[in-house]
Amino acid sequence: RIAEMAKVTQLIDNEVFRAYVTYATIILLKMMLMSCITAYYRIRRKAFANPEDVPFGKSENAKKFLRTDTDVERVRRSHLNDLENIVPFFGIGLLYALSGPELSTALLHFRIFAGARILHTIAYLTPLPQPGRGLSWAVGYVVTFSMAYKVLKTALYL
Amino acid sequence: RIAEMAKVTQLIDNEVFRAYVTYATIILLKMMLMSCITAYYRIRRKAFANPEDVPFGKSENAKKFLRTDTDVERVRRSHLNDLENIVPFFGIGLLYALSGPELSTALLHFRIFAGARILHTIAYLTPLPQPGRGLSWAVGYVVTFSMAYKVLKTALYL
Amino acid sequence: RIAEMAKVTQLIDNEVFRAYVTYATIILLKMMLMSCITAYYRIRRKAFANPEDVPFGKSENAKKFLRTDTDVERVRRSHLNDLENIVPFFGIGLLYALSGPELSTALLHFRIFAGARILHTIAYLTPLPQPGRGLSWAVGYVVTFSMAYKVLKTALYL
Repeated sequence: RIAEMAKVTQLIDNEVFRAYVTYATIILLKMMLMSCITAYYRIRRKAFANPEDVPFGKSENAKKFLRTDTDVERVRRSHLNDLENIVPFFGIGLLYALSGPELSTALLHFRIFAGARILHTIAYLTPLPQPGRGLSWAVGYVVTFSMAYKVLKTALYL
Repeated sequence: RIAEMAKVTQLIDNEVFRAYVTYATIILLKMMLMSCITAYYRIRRKAFANPEDVPFGKSENAKKFLRTDTDVERVRRSHLNDLENIVPFFGIGLLYALSGPELSTALLHFRIFAGARILHTIAYLTPLPQPGRGLSWAVGYVVTFSMAYKVLKTALYL
Repeated sequence: RIAEMAKVTQLIDNEVFRAYVTYATIILLKMMLMSCITAYYRIRRKAFANPEDVPFGKSENAKKFLRTDTDVERVRRSHLNDLENIVPFFGIGLLYALSGPELSTALLHFRIFAGARILHTIAYLTPLPQPGRGLSWAVGYVVTFSMAYKVLKTALYL
């Protein structure tokens, strides 16, 4: 059983894989943070999606808090944009980490992507004037394509 | 080729990894079920998103069925909440399973998460009064953070 | 370090895993393409979600371009449907590729899923009359269930 466990954990001993694990975890935690920011704005703006969520007043009264709010919707769009971009990064990044890239090249990809997505969230929520958000989105997008290119070059089997 | 296959499948022989595989698959299947529940409510409530989906009446008539319905929107929010929470569980959980946790600890994490998300769906669709849904969401969230902590403690490479 | 890297990259030498990597990457890239199609329609239809995104006119003027457009919303629903279906495929497919299926069976699953999702996007955006889109959705759904069945049969550990 110990030998078996050793085989499984050998993946986590590889430096490229550890770098992937670190940045993938950080960026997934960042995405999870969006749920808390949404909840914060829903309470502060008193704008809820479900009648049972309204924390004050009678149920008669609750209906007027079932509304959309521009700030809440902004956070939700930012969260959905994370899903649309971090899911491909997680998936393609995992396959990339297994395709044997140079450590320095891999670190460059992971760091730029993580930085770009953190900037994207800041640009979305502040909001910063364009093209701030657009550029940070594009940088993450190009990094993911670059990893996909390496993956397909290494592993293509149609 | 058989030796090669043996190396790949050795991952699936590890008990922690098998436990991860089992619970990750169950919870992804639960998420997929939301598509069917949405379709069921769309047909029952006659509330469709696309003109070509309306299964009755002429195209003139179809327009009045292009509407939102509170029950359909509730199922859709539940589905999106699954995406927002099950994606991080799948990703962080995979890295956690590779980081060599104790089998009993890992099983505890996977079972609590799967149970919490099933309760979350029941609480959302019934709907149960708060804080039922809020608590089930928070439990799944904390479990994912706990796994992320173990992952970063084991593999951190910035 | 070279021996270590060899162990990590042995996964990518396995034919089933290479097939998975290829189709998973292709289908994630297809999903990423939806972001560009959304941006294209937002600019063409002059329908934006954020005031800072409106690329013309004064900020006074910008408000009238903050609107929803049926074509933009159609692309967005198609993108969300991709997320709802490609995330389970990526996750369950990864576990399936590690569960030691026959190469020919695995290729059949991956090819049918990728084809079905490409047809789904074409059917959604054209739009083609139903049941074109419904069938292509169902085919991808059944393929994912079939892989989940194999995964649970191989690895079940509750």
